[in-house]
Amino acid sequence: MLSGPDLATIRAAHERIAPQIHRTLVLTSSALNDLTGARLYFKCENFQKTGSFKIRGATNAVLSLSEEEAKRGVVTHSSGNHAAALARTAGKRGIPAWIVMPSNAPETKKAAVRSYGGQITECEPTLAAREATAKAILEKTGANLVHPYDNLRVIAGQGTVALEILEQTPDLDFLLAPVSGGGLLSGSAIAAKELRPKIRVIGCEPKNADDAFRSMESGKLEPAAKSETIADGLRATLCPLTFSILRDRVDEIVTVSEAEIVEAMRMIWERMKIVIEPSAAVAAAPALLKKIDARGKRVGIILSGGNLDLANLPFHF
Amino acid sequence: MLSGPDLATIRAAHERIAPQIHRTLVLTSSALNDLTGARLYFKCENFQKTGSFKIRGATNAVLSLSEEEAKRGVVTHSSGNHAAALARTAGKRGIPAWIVMPSNAPETKKAAVRSYGGQITECEPTLAAREATAKAILEKTGANLVHPYDNLRVIAGQGTVALEILEQTPDLDFLLAPVSGGGLLSGSAIAAKELRPKIRVIGCEPKNADDAFRSMESGKLEPAAKSETIADGLRATLCPLTFSILRDRVDEIVTVSEAEIVEAMRMIWERMKIVIEPSAAVAAAPALLKKIDARGKRVGIILSGGNLDLANLPFHF
Repeated sequence: MLSGPDLATIRAAHERIAPQIHRTLVLTSSALNDLTGARLYFKCENFQKTGSFKIRGATNAVLSLSEEEAKRGVVTHSSGNHAAALARTAGKRGIPAWIVMPSNAPETKKAAVRSYGGQITECEPTLAAREATAKAILEKTGANLVHPYDNLRVIAGQGTVALEILEQTPDLDFLLAPVSGGGLLSGSAIAAKELRPKIRVIGCEPKNADDAFRSMESGKLEPAAKSETIADGLRATLCPLTFSILRDRVDEIVTVSEAEIVEAMRMIWERMKIVIEPSAAVAAAPALLKKIDARGKRVGIILSGGNLDLANLPFHF
Repeated sequence: MLSGPDLATIRAAHERIAPQIHRTLVLTSSALNDLTGARLYFKCENFQKTGSFKIRGATNAVLSLSEEEAKRGVVTHSSGNHAAALARTAGKRGIPAWIVMPSNAPETKKAAVRSYGGQITECEPTLAAREATAKAILEKTGANLVHPYDNLRVIAGQGTVALEILEQTPDLDFLLAPVSGGGLLSGSAIAAKELRPKIRVIGCEPKNADDAFRSMESGKLEPAAKSETIADGLRATLCPLTFSILRDRVDEIVTVSEAEIVEAMRMIWERMKIVIEPSAAVAAAPALLKKIDARGKRVGIILSGGNLDLANLPFHF
């Protein structure tokens, strides 16, 4: 069985990355509490550097490279937020970042990568194309692959989100996080279950990209769904490493429809006056739309990011 | 000369309303600081109860009524945020609120008034129609008029925004606030100039609704402009009371175009991941678009509210 980082490793990652990231706010909304009958605690990684939690894992990976390794730069493939994060942290260390992005990634996310000095190579929007393109660059440059989630240092970095929210709100009954490749969810599940064994950790996934749900049901890694979801950050699939961690640590995967994603997103924008991206709304939807029984409970929700094209919003109902 | 509330009155208002309002966050953005060369401090009244600062003045007015006065209820006319605020605070005191709203007020704002139990009467979108409709209700019900800005208790309540930001960020060089009827700007100018005499207080106004700018230039109350602005909260005009305060306390009025309002709004949504309404963007625009010389200075910006129809956003460029 593959095993992930332990709590001590996640704490070490937190110490390593703290100077370069925000300790993000946890916001509450009395309107949304009234509506759900629960007490909701929103961990605002949309306010994080680069607009998403991805800077945590990327920074931990880049700062963990030796001087010798770092010189050769880093390469990754990503639908957007990991790309921007890796470009920024590589830029801060003064090393090159080669970023493979699917051609359908939002323009805002491509622009962010460029603004941090990342060098973009576009490819077809499939996992196979992404991996092949990254491999070609890797062979040419000798750079270090920083996979967006199949990487222990990245998982340890993402786990610092849970570390923080459990320091900020120690007595949570639930922790909800989106799941795609599983880096955030696996790192967070490790930290949360160590710090608070009775917490219920729930992965939240678009119905249209539900490989994690199906894999947890069948007990083996299932292939990608067609992945046509508005939650553009959640189109990747689990890898053996993240699946192994989730199987041991995650209590349940809840899937949400496209309409539910938009509804949850609209509720948060309207009531809380914060901008979150669809992938973040995926983690809020089960609580806001009462798909889990959280009445009277304390629910931590990881709002994973806030990057999206404002000119192309789904609110035209 | 008409005179406004003094600092002690604003402090008393703050104590009175504190249990019912949020002490809102002051947020910063390193991206926007880098872009402007200034240090910007955003007072987030978009996170305030009812989604705008208006709850401060309304609450101070309603809590200042005697038991005998309160029984007869309250009446006002408002393009939206004051309406929702008065409905909420009246509802909390258990007294009726009659709200006159222009027929073109955003649907979100009407829905908010209804959700707090306010009784809406619609009228033509002119100041004359609003005042006449309110007067008719007043005569019929004997309720207390809580004018959205021509009211000392309301002005004192709105001044608590400046009181707070100067406690949270004591060493500001500038304070920027939107101006419409002048309640927020006059109350804030009184508090700011008392607490920090050398602070530069700047009123920010849409070019398309620039009566305050023209009045300050000419030295007398000028009539309304045509008032076709996206900043739906800023379509009112100064009254003799607010004009008198502004003349003494405000250093400058800066006007901004419709395109500048949308640009500033987009910058804040994209970079800060918060939802602000166009009226709030009016106060941010002079700093973000370098219409004032704030390089190296500390600039307080009052983000007045965050209420708008998400289905009708101006970002389709």
